[in-house]
Amino acid sequence: MAGRGEETRQQILGAAIAEFSQHGIAGARVDRIAKTAGANISSLFRYFGNKSLLFDAAFDALAVRSIDVVPFDALLLPEYAGKLMDHYQANADLVRLSAWYQLERPSEGVPDPVVASEGNKLEAIRQAQAAGAVSTQFAPHELLSMILHLSLIATGATPIISATATDFDAARRSVVEAVRALTRVEC
Amino acid sequence: MAGRGEETRQQILGAAIAEFSQHGIAGARVDRIAKTAGANISSLFRYFGNKSLLFDAAFDALAVRSIDVVPFDALLLPEYAGKLMDHYQANADLVRLSAWYQLERPSEGVPDPVVASEGNKLEAIRQAQAAGAVSTQFAPHELLSMILHLSLIATGATPIISATATDFDAARRSVVEAVRALTRVEC
Repeated sequence: MAGRGEETRQQILGAAIAEFSQHGIAGARVDRIAKTAGANISSLFRYFGNKSLLFDAAFDALAVRSIDVVPFDALLLPEYAGKLMDHYQANADLVRLSAWYQLERPSEGVPDPVVASEGNKLEAIRQAQAAGAVSTQFAPHELLSMILHLSLIATGATPIISATATDFDAARRSVVEAVRALTRVEC
Repeated sequence: MAGRGEETRQQILGAAIAEFSQHGIAGARVDRIAKTAGANISSLFRYFGNKSLLFDAAFDALAVRSIDVVPFDALLLPEYAGKLMDHYQANADLVRLSAWYQLERPSEGVPDPVVASEGNKLEAIRQAQAAGAVSTQFAPHELLSMILHLSLIATGATPIISATATDFDAARRSVVEAVRALTRVEC
């Protein structure tokens, strides 16, 4: 019985991720989520409380699940950027859900695992800079932020509106080369 | 009478920009827009049809109004990036409205003036590269896209979730230097 309840919970969560990723919090419909999950709406409310709390659960599940799926290596930052782009390309849901989160949950705290992962990345960059492997031209936080933002260029989930079709491979090559230029020690 | 109608129309448009920027299309409430504009809801519908069309009008007005407010200069790309960041900092409405547009209007065409402006920028970069003033390491479209995405790092309106508070001045200095590194001819 407990196993069956957990299964239903996971099905609702999966359907919620898809629905929120597509429509955001305000645009999402819990009846559609319940229907997609093959659950009834009363169990949805029993498990998750309300639409807003269901979004939080969906975001936490997805954010936590995707942390460090792309292993971070401060010594291979250009390659990291490329792999991040592949990851975003394969997981448009994750990118869109994060975009909605930023717009619709502006004052929300950042989930603990995300905070911890960011701290680890910054410390790794600091060490790579101290070891002379990465240029010290940029402070760790600014460098990481620039790398992450460059990695978004092919997602279509940023405020940049362009009429030019994105060539993913060309964008990926450019970002990898750009990060190389921003991190190399000798120039 | 025509003047008064146009005034009402502009007031509704201004209130719509603020409301949509805050809440997006699904989350916006037309009764709140009418109230803010000091108009009644029937004139809102008479002027703009429905919520979705009102969003389009608000977006077009804002997008067209902000085109080339920051003059583009292919010979001063680092400075352009810095000024764009200032512009985004001073006009959070514009950035958020564009973010909602990307999420809630994914299949919408890009407004003509935006297309034309982008074409001009790409041509200017092409000429600057041909003249040897800008590195040819990146194709014009990829270079422009990277510059625009770097310029977003302090907006909080991208899918990048960070626990670190943004120091705008530090971010601006980094982006200007980064664009310099990506565009300089000798390295």
